[in-house]
Amino acid sequence: MRNPSTTRRDLLRAASCLAIAPLLGVPTRGRAQSDASSERVELERLVAANRILAHENVVDAFGHVSIRDPGNSMRYVLARSRSPELIELADLMRFELDGTPIDARGRTPYGERMIHGAIYEARPDVHSVVHFHSYAVLPFTISGVPLKPLIHTAGVIGAEIPVWDIRTEFGDTDMLVRNMAEGRSLAKALGLRTCVLLRGHGAAIAARNVKEAVLTAYYLQVDAQVQLQALALGGVPKALSPAEITATTATQFSPLALDRAWEYFCVRAGVEPL
Amino acid sequence: MRNPSTTRRDLLRAASCLAIAPLLGVPTRGRAQSDASSERVELERLVAANRILAHENVVDAFGHVSIRDPGNSMRYVLARSRSPELIELADLMRFELDGTPIDARGRTPYGERMIHGAIYEARPDVHSVVHFHSYAVLPFTISGVPLKPLIHTAGVIGAEIPVWDIRTEFGDTDMLVRNMAEGRSLAKALGLRTCVLLRGHGAAIAARNVKEAVLTAYYLQVDAQVQLQALALGGVPKALSPAEITATTATQFSPLALDRAWEYFCVRAGVEPL
Amino acid sequence: MRNPSTTRRDLLRAASCLAIAPLLGVPTRGRAQSDASSERVELERLVAANRILAHENVVDAFGHVSIRDPGNSMRYVLARSRSPELIELADLMRFELDGTPIDARGRTPYGERMIHGAIYEARPDVHSVVHFHSYAVLPFTISGVPLKPLIHTAGVIGAEIPVWDIRTEFGDTDMLVRNMAEGRSLAKALGLRTCVLLRGHGAAIAARNVKEAVLTAYYLQVDAQVQLQALALGGVPKALSPAEITATTATQFSPLALDRAWEYFCVRAGVEPL
Amino acid sequence: MRNPSTTRRDLLRAASCLAIAPLLGVPTRGRAQSDASSERVELERLVAANRILAHENVVDAFGHVSIRDPGNSMRYVLARSRSPELIELADLMRFELDGTPIDARGRTPYGERMIHGAIYEARPDVHSVVHFHSYAVLPFTISGVPLKPLIHTAGVIGAEIPVWDIRTEFGDTDMLVRNMAEGRSLAKALGLRTCVLLRGHGAAIAARNVKEAVLTAYYLQVDAQVQLQALALGGVPKALSPAEITATTATQFSPLALDRAWEYFCVRAGVEPL
Repeated sequence: MRNPSTTRRDLLRAASCLAIAPLLGVPTRGRAQSDASSERVELERLVAANRILAHENVVDAFGHVSIRDPGNSMRYVLARSRSPELIELADLMRFELDGTPIDARGRTPYGERMIHGAIYEARPDVHSVVHFHSYAVLPFTISGVPLKPLIHTAGVIGAEIPVWDIRTEFGDTDMLVRNMAEGRSLAKALGLRTCVLLRGHGAAIAARNVKEAVLTAYYLQVDAQVQLQALALGGVPKALSPAEITATTATQFSPLALDRAWEYFCVRAGVEPL
Repeated sequence: MRNPSTTRRDLLRAASCLAIAPLLGVPTRGRAQSDASSERVELERLVAANRILAHENVVDAFGHVSIRDPGNSMRYVLARSRSPELIELADLMRFELDGTPIDARGRTPYGERMIHGAIYEARPDVHSVVHFHSYAVLPFTISGVPLKPLIHTAGVIGAEIPVWDIRTEFGDTDMLVRNMAEGRSLAKALGLRTCVLLRGHGAAIAARNVKEAVLTAYYLQVDAQVQLQALALGGVPKALSPAEITATTATQFSPLALDRAWEYFCVRAGVEPL
Repeated sequence: MRNPSTTRRDLLRAASCLAIAPLLGVPTRGRAQSDASSERVELERLVAANRILAHENVVDAFGHVSIRDPGNSMRYVLARSRSPELIELADLMRFELDGTPIDARGRTPYGERMIHGAIYEARPDVHSVVHFHSYAVLPFTISGVPLKPLIHTAGVIGAEIPVWDIRTEFGDTDMLVRNMAEGRSLAKALGLRTCVLLRGHGAAIAARNVKEAVLTAYYLQVDAQVQLQALALGGVPKALSPAEITATTATQFSPLALDRAWEYFCVRAGVEPL
Repeated sequence: MRNPSTTRRDLLRAASCLAIAPLLGVPTRGRAQSDASSERVELERLVAANRILAHENVVDAFGHVSIRDPGNSMRYVLARSRSPELIELADLMRFELDGTPIDARGRTPYGERMIHGAIYEARPDVHSVVHFHSYAVLPFTISGVPLKPLIHTAGVIGAEIPVWDIRTEFGDTDMLVRNMAEGRSLAKALGLRTCVLLRGHGAAIAARNVKEAVLTAYYLQVDAQVQLQALALGGVPKALSPAEITATTATQFSPLALDRAWEYFCVRAGVEPL
């Protein structure tokens, strides 16, 4: 949702893009120019992803999105503890997979960054993780009704979406994934899938890159809304077949569809479609 | 939803209106001045229709709207592959009914343009087609409950709305209508009606012109929402009688109603009400 | 919903306020200055009511609001056929109770103005009428479940809301109230109440003044949404008692509440809170 | 929801911040500078809370939020009778716990300020109170289904939310809490809890400070929406355990979470995140 500090933020973001790159370890000297540019683009995309998820109400005050560090697969990049709607390049931090900040410089990280680290640790194929509390998805985390892909744009969520309940292994907690033991338990429930629900909490998505992560989060939310309403109509809604799930995923992630959606989301969120 | 690139887009659109007209084959010399102006107005209206459908959340990143080519009934005009929210005059392309681009100039067409071509081929009375994935309509594509016109503004959707399932004839696919065989199968399910639903995918609307197409798409979405809620109240909701459907359609498409709605939609979407 | 022609409209409105007053028969000479000012304020309020109902999504492209002519109780003031979101002072027209325009000057009236005239004719106590197709209310026009005031802000809708079905007396039509016979039938169903629903069409509200009309329309919509959800929770929702309905109505229409709400609605709709 | 008078309001607010402080009894001379600044910050936060609750649709034209007077625990600060969306520093008034205005200067107070006074009187631990008519919460005030915390962000609403019906003790009324007898009855129903629902009316929240009050009101609304949808899925939704409620509350109110959310809400509402 647009707010009056947009102009200020846009200026800040432009400035920080230039100022902060060295601080984040983005090489500006000594490495090939293309690597540095490519890394900057990925960081800008991560900022865009934050803004998109907020603008589309996939996240609210809470929630976060990360990418595996393009320069070091044993690290990931995630914003400091701040709402995605407000994230700027200067907010991005780097972490070891166990959550240790590389160069905090006084910035406070998200308490739940272990969700990201544990998934990157378990899944070499994953390069972007989203964690969010989508209001439309939350009913499926507590009702026992499995969330299924029912629409062709949501084949990307995968055939099966497990529900992980922190209480099973860890008893009563504040329900946040605060350490690697909890993160690894969640990653184990996720397995090789794309989505996992957290009981009474939200969802996590494991994707190959940040564009696919954002598209999957968005359509998980749409699919949840459609499934809720289809169930209200009565009967058993027709679901996508396993082969349809595979085929629609490939299509949704083809450049034709992915880039069209990415441009749409970026423009709506007021960011450059890189 | 308004976004900060509106001003830029408006300027671009004004410029392209003048620059692109010749490239699209809109005659600026050699044909009567009124024909050229009339064709330009129709192209501008098609751009407006794109923006309206996006602004009213009938389409999201995906979906598209076309018109039969005003100058050649064996062709249609449809934007290149880009979200309707962002379409400008320069994005419009011409196609043969079988989907062959006339003058692509490097622009990528929608993969599903065959929906449009197949309907134009089957229906000489149709001069505008919309394809969209309205979230409110999607539950009716998978639940077995027929979508019926229940409100007087939605008589235009017609007495009967069939559901076409691509799997019936084509087995497992990525569920997009990618070729003329699939398009013709869909057009056959549509028959002489106004709307057809695509299982787990969305809807297509066949209309006499682009204003009627937009109004029908909008009120199909409203009717779906109302029917869902009416069914939740229990019992069988009162529906429009066949004669009411005919009469309300004529009224909704009379200039008094159609132009009032078109002006409303255009102003809200930030486009000129041509 | 704000749109880019706001500035233009605001300027137009300011200009027309001065220019059009004489054309509407608002006396600028020969009558006491206070009468003229008071009448202008009422016309401005009617324009505001149009904008508010649109901004709050009580009306969409269709719907309208009128006031009994402050200077002649056998006439009413209603905009020309244009969406409420776009109404300006220059759009206001005067009509005899039977719908005859007093000074059309080429402007087309709403086809359904008879709703207003028939209610003014039947109800000397009524000085403002709203007709709208609220999406939240529509399910109650076709389901057989009576809409009841369940929340204290909606006591104003009255203890009983009848449903009028045009088909009962007039058979198959386009469902618009197009003539005084139909209007009088509707007014008869309304009786001495505040609200009447039109099957598969919408609602009409009869109020003492335009502020109360707007507040009632708004909270009829809220009450419908709450009742739908309360019924979904199961059981019979607690309703307001008859004495509570009377008492809450008096309170909602007291200056303390009415003016607070009117200011709120006006500022949100971008109009001066007169 | 942003409106065109934002700029005007922002200027007014800045001016009134300086002008009105003395009038409100905020000491500018004679008391330590830090006390005066600290009190001004609390008043500014109260204004922000009004704007946030309106922007997030927790309140509409009606509803209000107060703080216990930072300089006198036998008083509270609450705006004059005006919609929260429009509240500015100059609208804030001080009251004795029984609702007597300290320095009204012609401003009209809310008729329901006794909700605040009675809760402050009964609860020395409470320093902020919100009263609102959230549309999502209203169905739970009339349906007999208890509202429970089902999501980790809503543990703050507490394990038990009683429903108070004014009719039980006071018979037929206009359902507003107009005097201390009614206020004390409500406070008694609230007991030591955080939330109490008012039948057919809304909710009241008792919090330790205004940030926690706003966060609780916001997530009460989210939880209501989630519970409604979870129940629609069928079965009994998994709820938070008592220990989870305690733990999630502590976490939601820790600076890490509370400040993140406060900044988010402030920026969205267009106010400075103090």
